[in-house]
Amino acid sequence: MRVLYHLPLSPFARKVRLVLAEKRLPFELRSEKVWARRPEYLELNPACTVPTLVEDNGLVIPDSSVICEYLDEAYPDTGLLGRTLGERVETRRLVAWFDDKFAKDVLRNLYWEKTLKQMLGLGPPDGAALRAGLANLKHHLNYIGWLAENRKWLAGANISLADFAAAAYLSTLDYIDAMDWSVSPPAREWYARMKSRPCFRSVLADRVSGMVPPPRYSDLDF
Amino acid sequence: MRVLYHLPLSPFARKVRLVLAEKRLPFELRSEKVWARRPEYLELNPACTVPTLVEDNGLVIPDSSVICEYLDEAYPDTGLLGRTLGERVETRRLVAWFDDKFAKDVLRNLYWEKTLKQMLGLGPPDGAALRAGLANLKHHLNYIGWLAENRKWLAGANISLADFAAAAYLSTLDYIDAMDWSVSPPAREWYARMKSRPCFRSVLADRVSGMVPPPRYSDLDF
Repeated sequence: MRVLYHLPLSPFARKVRLVLAEKRLPFELRSEKVWARRPEYLELNPACTVPTLVEDNGLVIPDSSVICEYLDEAYPDTGLLGRTLGERVETRRLVAWFDDKFAKDVLRNLYWEKTLKQMLGLGPPDGAALRAGLANLKHHLNYIGWLAENRKWLAGANISLADFAAAAYLSTLDYIDAMDWSVSPPAREWYARMKSRPCFRSVLADRVSGMVPPPRYSDLDF
Repeated sequence: MRVLYHLPLSPFARKVRLVLAEKRLPFELRSEKVWARRPEYLELNPACTVPTLVEDNGLVIPDSSVICEYLDEAYPDTGLLGRTLGERVETRRLVAWFDDKFAKDVLRNLYWEKTLKQMLGLGPPDGAALRAGLANLKHHLNYIGWLAENRKWLAGANISLADFAAAAYLSTLDYIDAMDWSVSPPAREWYARMKSRPCFRSVLADRVSGMVPPPRYSDLDF
Protein backbone atom coordinates (compact mmCIF):
# COMPACT_ATOMS: atom_id res chain seq x y z
CA MET A 1 0.00 0.00 0.00
CA ARG A 2 1.21 3.49 -0.93
CA VAL A 3 2.26 5.41 2.23
CA LEU A 4 2.28 9.16 2.78
CA TYR A 5 4.28 10.42 5.75
CA HIS A 6 2.70 13.63 6.99
CA LEU A 7 1.63 15.80 9.90
CA PRO A 8 -2.12 16.43 10.07
CA LEU A 9 -1.85 20.20 9.81
CA SER A 10 1.16 20.35 7.48
CA PRO A 11 0.03 22.56 4.58
CA PHE A 12 2.45 20.86 2.17
CA ALA A 13 1.29 17.37 3.13
CA ARG A 14 -2.33 18.50 2.72
CA LYS A 15 -1.57 19.59 -0.85
CA VAL A 16 -0.36 16.07 -1.65
CA ARG A 17 -3.29 14.44 0.18
CA LEU A 18 -5.74 16.46 -1.94
CA VAL A 19 -3.93 15.58 -5.16
CA LEU A 20 -3.77 11.85 -4.31
CA ALA A 21 -7.49 11.86 -3.45
CA GLU A 22 -8.41 13.86 -6.57
CA LYS A 23 -6.55 11.26 -8.65
CA ARG A 24 -8.31 8.49 -6.68
CA LEU A 25 -5.02 6.92 -5.64
CA PRO A 26 -5.45 5.02 -2.37
CA PHE A 27 -2.84 5.67 0.33
CA GLU A 28 -2.15 5.09 3.99
CA LEU A 29 -1.33 8.15 6.11
CA ARG A 30 1.46 7.89 8.69
CA SER A 31 2.21 10.71 11.08
CA GLU A 32 5.92 11.57 11.24
CA LYS A 33 7.26 13.77 14.03
CA VAL A 34 10.04 15.26 11.92
CA TRP A 35 11.65 17.02 14.88
CA ALA A 36 12.53 13.60 16.36
CA ARG A 37 14.80 13.04 13.30
CA ARG A 38 14.10 9.28 13.28
CA PRO A 39 17.07 7.62 11.51
CA GLU A 40 14.82 5.42 9.32
CA TYR A 41 12.97 8.53 8.16
CA LEU A 42 16.20 10.44 7.47
CA GLU A 43 17.14 7.60 5.12
CA LEU A 44 13.89 8.10 3.22
CA ASN A 45 14.20 11.88 3.17
CA PRO A 46 17.53 13.48 4.20
CA ALA A 47 15.82 16.90 4.33
CA CYS A 48 13.63 15.40 7.10
CA THR A 49 10.47 17.25 6.05
CA VAL A 50 6.92 16.07 5.47
CA PRO A 51 5.46 14.93 3.18
CA THR A 52 7.33 11.92 1.83
CA LEU A 53 5.53 9.46 -0.44
CA VAL A 54 6.54 5.81 -0.69
CA GLU A 55 5.05 4.01 -3.66
CA ASP A 56 4.03 0.33 -3.78
CA ASN A 57 7.12 -0.42 -5.88
CA GLY A 58 9.39 1.10 -3.22
CA LEU A 59 10.05 4.41 -5.00
CA VAL A 60 10.57 7.11 -2.36
CA ILE A 61 9.53 10.66 -3.27
CA PRO A 62 10.22 13.51 -0.83
CA ASP A 63 9.13 17.17 -1.08
CA SER A 64 5.58 18.20 -1.95
CA SER A 65 6.51 19.85 -5.25
CA VAL A 66 8.58 16.84 -6.36
CA ILE A 67 5.70 14.53 -5.36
CA CYS A 68 3.12 16.57 -7.31
CA GLU A 69 5.28 16.63 -10.47
CA TYR A 70 5.83 12.88 -10.07
CA LEU A 71 2.11 12.14 -9.60
CA ASP A 72 1.20 14.07 -12.72
CA GLU A 73 3.78 12.15 -14.76
CA ALA A 74 3.01 8.74 -13.28
CA TYR A 75 -0.80 9.12 -13.32
CA PRO A 76 -1.51 11.49 -16.21
CA ASP A 77 -5.23 10.62 -16.56
CA THR A 78 -6.25 13.41 -14.21
CA GLY A 79 -3.62 15.90 -15.35
CA LEU A 80 -3.45 18.82 -12.94
CA LEU A 81 -0.76 20.96 -14.58
CA GLY A 82 -2.57 21.99 -17.77
CA ARG A 83 -2.26 20.89 -21.37
CA THR A 84 -0.53 23.68 -23.31
CA LEU A 85 2.89 25.05 -22.43
CA GLY A 86 1.24 28.35 -21.48
CA GLU A 87 -1.28 26.68 -19.16
CA ARG A 88 1.51 24.69 -17.51
CA VAL A 89 3.58 27.83 -16.97
CA GLU A 90 0.64 29.61 -15.33
CA THR A 91 -0.18 26.63 -13.09
CA ARG A 92 3.43 26.23 -11.99
CA ARG A 93 3.83 30.01 -11.54
CA LEU A 94 0.93 30.07 -9.08
CA VAL A 95 2.04 26.92 -7.29
CA ALA A 96 5.51 28.49 -6.84
CA TRP A 97 3.79 31.68 -5.64
CA PHE A 98 1.91 29.76 -2.94
CA ASP A 99 4.81 27.41 -2.10
CA ASP A 100 7.34 30.22 -1.76
CA LYS A 101 5.75 33.63 -1.28
CA PHE A 102 2.53 32.68 0.52
CA ALA A 103 4.53 30.25 2.67
CA LYS A 104 7.03 32.95 3.67
CA ASP A 105 4.53 35.82 4.02
CA VAL A 106 1.75 33.91 5.74
CA LEU A 107 2.38 30.27 6.74
CA ARG A 108 5.70 30.96 8.44
CA ASN A 109 4.10 33.70 10.54
CA LEU A 110 0.83 31.97 11.40
CA TYR A 111 1.15 28.17 11.08
CA TRP A 112 4.61 28.05 12.65
CA GLU A 113 3.85 30.53 15.43
CA LYS A 114 0.45 29.07 16.34
CA THR A 115 1.23 25.34 16.15
CA LEU A 116 4.74 23.90 15.77
CA LYS A 117 6.52 26.51 17.87
CA GLN A 118 4.33 25.81 20.89
CA MET A 119 4.24 22.08 20.28
CA LEU A 120 8.06 22.09 20.43
CA GLY A 121 8.09 24.20 23.62
CA LEU A 122 9.80 27.14 21.90
CA GLY A 123 7.63 29.73 23.63
CA PRO A 124 4.43 31.64 22.94
CA PRO A 125 3.61 33.04 19.50
CA ASP A 126 5.41 36.25 18.58
CA GLY A 127 2.80 39.02 18.35
CA ALA A 128 4.62 40.92 15.60
CA ALA A 129 4.84 37.77 13.46
CA LEU A 130 1.12 37.06 13.94
CA ARG A 131 0.19 40.62 12.96
CA ALA A 132 2.44 40.50 9.88
CA GLY A 133 1.02 37.12 8.89
CA LEU A 134 -2.59 38.31 9.18
CA ALA A 135 -1.86 41.51 7.22
CA ASN A 136 -0.10 39.54 4.45
CA LEU A 137 -2.93 37.01 4.40
CA LYS A 138 -5.39 39.78 3.46
CA HIS A 139 -3.31 40.69 0.40
CA HIS A 140 -3.04 37.07 -0.66
CA LEU A 141 -6.77 36.46 -0.14
CA ASN A 142 -7.54 39.45 -2.33
CA TYR A 143 -5.21 38.07 -5.01
CA ILE A 144 -6.93 34.67 -4.83
CA GLY A 145 -10.29 36.44 -5.01
CA TRP A 146 -9.14 38.43 -8.05
CA LEU A 147 -8.03 35.24 -9.81
CA ALA A 148 -11.28 33.46 -8.90
CA GLU A 149 -13.37 36.35 -10.22
CA ASN A 150 -11.52 36.59 -13.52
CA ARG A 151 -11.12 32.90 -14.28
CA LYS A 152 -13.12 29.77 -13.62
CA TRP A 153 -10.31 28.31 -11.51
CA LEU A 154 -7.16 29.98 -10.19
CA ALA A 155 -4.91 29.15 -13.15
CA GLY A 156 -7.56 29.28 -15.89
CA ALA A 157 -10.48 27.35 -17.32
CA ASN A 158 -9.64 24.06 -15.61
CA ILE A 159 -9.00 23.04 -12.04
CA SER A 160 -5.26 22.64 -11.48
CA LEU A 161 -2.55 22.07 -8.93
CA ALA A 162 -2.72 25.82 -8.19
CA ASP A 163 -6.22 25.33 -6.73
CA PHE A 164 -5.14 22.35 -4.63
CA ALA A 165 -2.05 24.15 -3.32
CA ALA A 166 -3.96 27.30 -2.32
CA ALA A 167 -6.88 25.36 -0.84
CA ALA A 168 -4.56 23.11 1.15
CA TYR A 169 -2.74 26.06 2.70
CA LEU A 170 -5.96 27.93 3.49
CA SER A 171 -7.44 24.78 5.05
CA THR A 172 -4.59 24.68 7.58
CA LEU A 173 -5.12 28.36 8.37
CA ASP A 174 -8.86 27.75 8.73
CA TYR A 175 -8.20 24.91 11.18
CA ILE A 176 -6.10 27.18 13.41
CA ASP A 177 -8.80 29.87 13.17
CA ALA A 178 -6.64 32.37 11.28
CA MET A 179 -9.07 32.93 8.39
CA ASP A 180 -11.31 35.95 7.97
CA TRP A 181 -13.39 34.89 4.98
CA SER A 182 -15.20 38.24 4.85
CA VAL A 183 -12.04 39.80 3.34
CA SER A 184 -12.82 38.43 -0.11
CA PRO A 185 -16.25 36.97 -1.02
CA PRO A 186 -14.91 35.61 -4.36
CA ALA A 187 -12.11 33.79 -2.53
CA ARG A 188 -14.67 32.38 -0.12
CA GLU A 189 -16.92 31.21 -2.97
CA TRP A 190 -13.94 29.54 -4.68
CA TYR A 191 -12.91 27.83 -1.40
CA ALA A 192 -16.51 26.59 -0.90
CA ARG A 193 -16.29 24.95 -4.33
CA MET A 194 -12.98 23.31 -3.42
CA LYS A 195 -14.27 22.21 -0.02
CA SER A 196 -17.25 20.42 -1.51
CA ARG A 197 -15.10 18.16 -3.68
CA PRO A 198 -14.86 14.54 -2.47
CA CYS A 199 -11.05 14.82 -2.27
CA PHE A 200 -11.44 17.31 0.60
CA ARG A 201 -13.29 14.93 2.95
CA SER A 202 -10.27 13.44 4.70
CA VAL A 203 -8.73 16.88 5.33
CA LEU A 204 -11.99 18.19 6.79
CA ALA A 205 -12.23 15.17 9.08
CA ASP A 206 -8.79 15.85 10.64
CA ARG A 207 -8.77 16.51 14.37
CA VAL A 208 -5.56 17.20 16.28
CA SER A 209 -5.57 16.47 19.99
CA GLY A 210 -5.68 19.67 22.06
CA MET A 211 -6.51 21.85 19.03
CA VAL A 212 -10.21 22.21 18.22
CA PRO A 213 -10.96 23.88 14.88
CA PRO A 214 -13.75 26.49 14.63
CA PRO A 215 -17.17 24.99 13.71
CA ARG A 216 -17.01 26.43 10.17
CA TYR A 217 -13.85 24.42 9.45
CA SER A 218 -15.73 21.35 8.22
CA ASP A 219 -18.99 23.14 7.36
CA LEU A 220 -19.56 23.22 3.59
CA ASP A 221 -21.88 26.25 4.05
CA PHE A 222 -19.47 28.29 6.14
CA MET B 1 14.90 37.50 -29.44
CA ARG B 2 14.35 35.57 -26.20
CA VAL B 3 15.05 37.80 -23.16
CA LEU B 4 16.18 36.75 -19.70
CA TYR B 5 15.83 39.33 -16.94
CA HIS B 6 18.49 38.69 -14.33
CA LEU B 7 21.08 40.09 -11.95
CA PRO B 8 24.66 39.05 -12.74
CA LEU B 9 25.28 37.32 -9.41
CA SER B 10 21.75 35.98 -8.89
CA PRO B 11 22.23 32.25 -8.24
CA PHE B 12 18.75 31.44 -9.58
CA ALA B 13 19.27 33.43 -12.78
CA ARG B 14 22.62 31.69 -13.26
CA LYS B 15 20.90 28.30 -13.11
CA VAL B 16 18.64 29.36 -15.99
CA ARG B 17 21.54 30.89 -17.96
CA LEU B 18 23.44 27.60 -17.74
CA VAL B 19 20.39 25.60 -18.82
CA LEU B 20 19.64 27.91 -21.76
CA ALA B 21 23.27 27.73 -22.88
CA GLU B 22 23.45 23.95 -22.44
CA LYS B 23 20.36 23.66 -24.64
CA ARG B 24 21.97 26.09 -27.16
CA LEU B 25 19.01 28.46 -26.96
CA PRO B 26 20.15 32.02 -27.77
CA PHE B 27 18.97 34.76 -25.40
CA GLU B 28 19.58 38.37 -24.55
CA LEU B 29 20.41 39.19 -20.92
CA ARG B 30 18.81 42.24 -19.30
CA SER B 31 19.73 43.38 -15.83
CA GLU B 32 16.69 44.08 -13.63
CA LYS B 33 17.09 45.94 -10.37
CA VAL B 34 14.19 44.17 -8.67
CA TRP B 35 14.31 46.44 -5.61
CA ALA B 36 13.20 49.37 -7.83
CA ARG B 37 9.89 47.48 -8.40
CA ARG B 38 9.57 48.83 -11.94
CA PRO B 39 5.84 48.72 -12.86
CA GLU B 40 6.48 47.14 -16.29
CA TYR B 41 8.49 44.39 -14.61
CA LEU B 42 5.82 43.80 -11.95
CA GLU B 43 3.40 43.14 -14.79
CA LEU B 44 5.72 40.46 -16.16
CA ASN B 45 6.36 38.95 -12.75
CA PRO B 46 4.17 40.01 -9.79
CA ALA B 47 6.60 38.30 -7.39
CA CYS B 48 9.22 40.79 -8.68
CA THR B 49 12.12 38.33 -8.56
CA VAL B 50 14.79 37.41 -11.09
CA PRO B 51 14.95 35.51 -13.33
CA THR B 52 12.02 36.04 -15.69
CA LEU B 53 12.17 34.61 -19.20
CA VAL B 54 10.25 36.16 -22.11
CA GLU B 55 10.02 33.92 -25.15
CA ASP B 56 9.98 35.08 -28.78
CA ASN B 57 6.26 34.32 -28.93
CA GLY B 58 5.59 36.58 -25.93
CA LEU B 59 5.16 33.82 -23.34
CA VAL B 60 6.35 35.15 -19.97
CA ILE B 61 7.83 32.63 -17.53
CA PRO B 62 8.84 33.77 -14.03
CA ASP B 63 10.65 31.78 -11.31
CA SER B 64 13.74 29.70 -11.99
CA SER B 65 12.11 26.37 -11.21
CA VAL B 66 9.09 27.15 -13.42
CA ILE B 67 11.46 28.25 -16.21
CA CYS B 68 13.54 25.06 -15.98
CA GLU B 69 10.44 22.81 -16.08
CA TYR B 70 9.18 24.84 -19.05
CA LEU B 71 12.48 24.62 -20.94
CA ASP B 72 12.61 20.87 -20.54
CA GLU B 73 9.07 20.51 -21.88
CA ALA B 74 9.45 23.03 -24.70
CA TYR B 75 12.93 21.88 -25.81
CA PRO B 76 13.10 18.21 -24.88
CA ASP B 77 16.06 17.31 -27.12
CA THR B 78 18.56 17.98 -24.34
CA GLY B 79 16.39 16.60 -21.54
CA LEU B 80 17.88 17.56 -18.18
CA LEU B 81 15.39 15.92 -15.80
CA GLY B 82 16.07 12.25 -16.54
CA ARG B 83 14.17 9.62 -18.48
CA THR B 84 12.62 7.20 -15.99
CA LEU B 85 10.23 8.26 -13.25
CA GLY B 86 12.87 7.31 -10.68
CA GLU B 87 15.57 9.41 -12.37
CA ARG B 88 13.21 12.38 -12.57
CA VAL B 89 12.34 12.07 -8.88
CA GLU B 90 16.04 12.03 -7.93
CA THR B 91 16.85 15.02 -10.16
CA ARG B 92 13.94 17.06 -8.82
CA ARG B 93 14.69 15.99 -5.22
CA LEU B 94 18.22 17.39 -5.51
CA VAL B 95 17.10 20.54 -7.31
CA ALA B 96 14.58 21.15 -4.51
CA TRP B 97 17.35 20.45 -1.98
CA PHE B 98 19.55 23.15 -3.55
CA ASP B 99 16.69 25.58 -4.25
CA ASP B 100 15.26 25.34 -0.74
CA LYS B 101 17.71 23.96 1.79
CA PHE B 102 21.01 25.13 0.30
CA ALA B 103 19.42 28.52 -0.42
CA LYS B 104 18.24 28.90 3.19
CA ASP B 105 21.32 27.40 4.88
CA VAL B 106 23.97 29.01 2.70
CA LEU B 107 22.87 31.52 0.03
CA ARG B 108 20.71 33.56 2.43
CA ASN B 109 23.62 33.88 4.86
CA LEU B 110 26.42 34.54 2.37
CA TYR B 111 25.06 35.89 -0.93
CA TRP B 112 22.53 38.19 0.74
CA GLU B 113 24.85 39.42 3.47
CA LYS B 114 27.88 39.96 1.20
CA THR B 115 26.16 41.53 -1.81
CA LEU B 116 22.54 42.67 -1.90
CA LYS B 117 22.37 43.86 1.70
CA GLN B 118 25.27 46.26 1.20
CA MET B 119 24.18 47.26 -2.30
CA LEU B 120 20.85 48.33 -0.82
CA GLY B 121 22.52 50.25 2.02
CA LEU B 122 21.11 47.96 4.70
CA GLY B 123 24.33 47.88 6.67
CA PRO B 124 27.42 45.69 6.95
CA PRO B 125 27.22 41.87 6.83
CA ASP B 126 26.07 40.20 10.04
CA GLY B 127 29.01 38.22 11.43
CA ALA B 128 26.83 35.47 12.91
CA ALA B 129 25.04 34.96 9.59
CA LEU B 130 28.36 34.73 7.72
CA ARG B 131 29.73 32.17 10.19
CA ALA B 132 26.54 30.10 9.99
CA GLY B 133 26.60 30.26 6.18
CA LEU B 134 30.22 29.12 5.97
CA ALA B 135 29.65 26.28 8.45
CA ASN B 136 26.55 25.10 6.55
CA LEU B 137 28.42 25.38 3.24
CA LYS B 138 30.97 22.80 4.46
CA HIS B 139 28.20 20.26 5.10
CA HIS B 140 26.64 20.90 1.72
CA LEU B 141 30.03 20.67 -0.05
CA ASN B 142 30.65 17.34 1.61
CA TYR B 143 27.22 16.13 0.45
CA ILE B 144 27.97 17.28 -3.11
CA GLY B 145 31.36 15.54 -2.87
CA TRP B 146 29.70 12.34 -1.63
CA LEU B 147 27.25 12.40 -4.53
CA ALA B 148 30.05 13.12 -7.03
CA GLU B 149 32.13 10.25 -5.69
CA ASN B 150 29.33 7.72 -5.78
CA ARG B 151 27.75 8.68 -9.11
CA LYS B 152 29.01 10.04 -12.40
CA TRP B 153 26.91 13.19 -11.99
CA LEU B 154 25.01 14.43 -8.93
CA ALA B 155 21.69 12.76 -9.73
CA GLY B 156 23.07 9.64 -11.43
CA ALA B 157 24.67 8.45 -14.66
CA ASN B 158 23.73 11.52 -16.71
CA ILE B 159 24.23 15.23 -16.28
CA SER B 160 20.99 16.81 -15.06
CA LEU B 161 19.37 19.96 -13.77
CA ALA B 162 20.75 19.02 -10.32
CA ASP B 163 24.30 19.63 -11.61
CA PHE B 164 23.37 22.97 -13.17
CA ALA B 165 21.55 24.14 -10.03
CA ALA B 166 24.40 23.24 -7.68
CA ALA B 167 27.09 24.60 -10.03
CA ALA B 168 25.19 27.87 -10.53
CA TYR B 169 24.89 28.46 -6.79
CA LEU B 170 28.53 27.58 -6.11
CA SER B 171 29.64 29.87 -8.96
CA THR B 172 28.01 32.83 -7.20
CA LEU B 173 29.70 31.88 -3.92
CA ASP B 174 33.02 31.51 -5.75
CA TYR B 175 32.63 35.01 -7.25
CA ILE B 176 32.15 36.55 -3.80
CA ASP B 177 35.15 34.53 -2.52
CA ALA B 178 33.15 32.41 -0.11
CA MET B 179 34.38 29.04 -1.40
CA ASP B 180 36.99 26.86 0.28
CA TRP B 181 37.46 24.16 -2.33
CA SER B 182 39.86 22.20 -0.11
CA VAL B 183 36.88 21.04 1.96
CA SER B 184 35.96 18.37 -0.58
CA PRO B 185 38.30 17.32 -3.41
CA PRO B 186 35.52 15.29 -5.13
CA ALA B 187 33.24 18.35 -5.12
CA ARG B 188 36.08 20.41 -6.57
CA GLU B 189 36.75 17.81 -9.30
CA TRP B 190 33.02 17.76 -10.18
CA TYR B 191 32.90 21.59 -10.28
CA ALA B 192 35.98 21.65 -12.56
CA ARG B 193 34.08 19.36 -14.96
CA MET B 194 31.06 21.68 -14.88
CA LYS B 195 33.20 24.78 -15.30
CA SER B 196 34.88 23.46 -18.43
CA ARG B 197 31.57 23.04 -20.27
CA PRO B 198 30.92 25.65 -22.98
CA CYS B 199 27.64 26.65 -21.26
CA PHE B 200 29.68 28.05 -18.35
CA ARG B 201 31.61 30.62 -20.41
CA SER B 202 29.20 33.52 -20.03
CA VAL B 203 28.91 33.04 -16.26
CA LEU B 204 32.71 32.97 -15.88
CA ALA B 205 33.01 36.18 -17.92
CA ASP B 206 30.69 38.12 -15.57
CA ARG B 207 32.22 41.11 -13.85
CA VAL B 208 30.24 43.31 -11.44
CA SER B 209 31.45 46.86 -10.97
CA GLY B 210 33.11 47.32 -7.59
CA MET B 211 33.29 43.57 -6.91
CA VAL B 212 36.36 41.79 -8.22
CA PRO B 213 36.23 37.99 -8.04
CA PRO B 214 39.28 35.99 -6.88
CA PRO B 215 41.61 34.97 -9.75
CA ARG B 216 40.53 31.29 -9.52
CA TYR B 217 36.92 32.27 -10.32
CA SER B 218 37.35 31.99 -14.08
CA ASP B 219 40.40 29.68 -14.00
CA LEU B 220 39.54 26.21 -15.29
CA ASP B 221 42.54 24.78 -13.34
CA PHE B 222 41.66 26.35 -10.02
